[in-house]
Amino acid sequence: MGRNAGHERVSDAMTRRLPAYYRHLCLLEKAGVAYISSRSLGEEMSLTDSQIRQDLSSFGGFGRQGRGYEVRALRESIGAILGLNRGHRMIIVGAGRLGSAIASFSGFPSVGFSIMALFDADERLVGTEFSGVPVLPASQLTTFLNENAVQIAVIAVPAKVAQQAVDLVCAGGVRGILNFAETDLRVPEGVLLQNVHLSDSLMALSFRMHELEILRGEKSDWT
Amino acid sequence: MGRNAGHERVSDAMTRRLPAYYRHLCLLEKAGVAYISSRSLGEEMSLTDSQIRQDLSSFGGFGRQGRGYEVRALRESIGAILGLNRGHRMIIVGAGRLGSAIASFSGFPSVGFSIMALFDADERLVGTEFSGVPVLPASQLTTFLNENAVQIAVIAVPAKVAQQAVDLVCAGGVRGILNFAETDLRVPEGVLLQNVHLSDSLMALSFRMHELEILRGEKSDWT
Repeated sequence: MGRNAGHERVSDAMTRRLPAYYRHLCLLEKAGVAYISSRSLGEEMSLTDSQIRQDLSSFGGFGRQGRGYEVRALRESIGAILGLNRGHRMIIVGAGRLGSAIASFSGFPSVGFSIMALFDADERLVGTEFSGVPVLPASQLTTFLNENAVQIAVIAVPAKVAQQAVDLVCAGGVRGILNFAETDLRVPEGVLLQNVHLSDSLMALSFRMHELEILRGEKSDWT
Repeated sequence: MGRNAGHERVSDAMTRRLPAYYRHLCLLEKAGVAYISSRSLGEEMSLTDSQIRQDLSSFGGFGRQGRGYEVRALRESIGAILGLNRGHRMIIVGAGRLGSAIASFSGFPSVGFSIMALFDADERLVGTEFSGVPVLPASQLTTFLNENAVQIAVIAVPAKVAQQAVDLVCAGGVRGILNFAETDLRVPEGVLLQNVHLSDSLMALSFRMHELEILRGEKSDWT
């Protein structure tokens, strides 16, 4: 929890809530909702009233007495805090099933990320494209990064070559790594790494199914 | 927060930490670590000492004075709490790029989930297999569920047919849904739904990159 320039690192829990706020506010805006109270927002998002007020006040007050938060302004502010208006350019290393699924995922462009290219060592994939994103040869990765300012790399290669891919993209100036490979990776100082653990979601689901049996009295304890 | 049989619903934050504990304890066990203190575990997982003791005591005390937690016993207990020893059977609806990537994902079997089959309406995919998991025709989904006790369905179809897929699998007795489709889904009472928002990870990464500039004083505020 280092301090710097009067700021403290934001907690992991808060960092997880911010994207959820953003998504929920996008839905409200789409539905034509102009204002929302912290109480209503809390009920819809399963958070307490005071949690919401505390979260939002930590970035400067967004509240309005009486009418609540202005949905569009709040969505734009949270988008700015998340850095979504900065036009991040990203590449995907690995054009296999997972990489190509990610390239085709409409959620990334909709939150302001532009996928420039996929890279793969498999010559059969080079020259194809997925949802308009071209597959380039892995051998061109360094040249591409030197010629294009790319901020984020998605790692979608097998675990055994993931560190090599990370070293290459970091040398090429990438500042953020979204890692889908099931392995621990090292990044240089100043580069941020976010691991995506798909099995965590499945474990959380399994837990909730187990918990439901206990809440219903079908099972008496956790063991 | 309903109460039942003396239990209260576990918080979302705790539900997210449990899989992280499980993963970390697996790594420690693999590395041959026999005992760990709450302090060391906390440092490795970026959690406080007291957070860890509080989390683990809420399921019954696992602690041992002096030597700390026994890694293997704690990993097994948390696995049991997560329901990982129950031999969940799952299917994947949608054998496109995402569905086939999930079928090939080694992390699911390693935490005790058995992927029985993929289902797809595309006849060109039927009869193929991914990592040994066969693709069956969507028309056989209901019959398959009637003949096999399947607890979990992964939804990996386009958003516009996702609700239809959910209705079918719920009618077939599935009790848990892991949803990758980018849409809100309704499930019947007693069925649990876990949405996977891939763009949340990317937004969290973007936020941390933005935050780093502020912590370093390269930028003075969040706007």
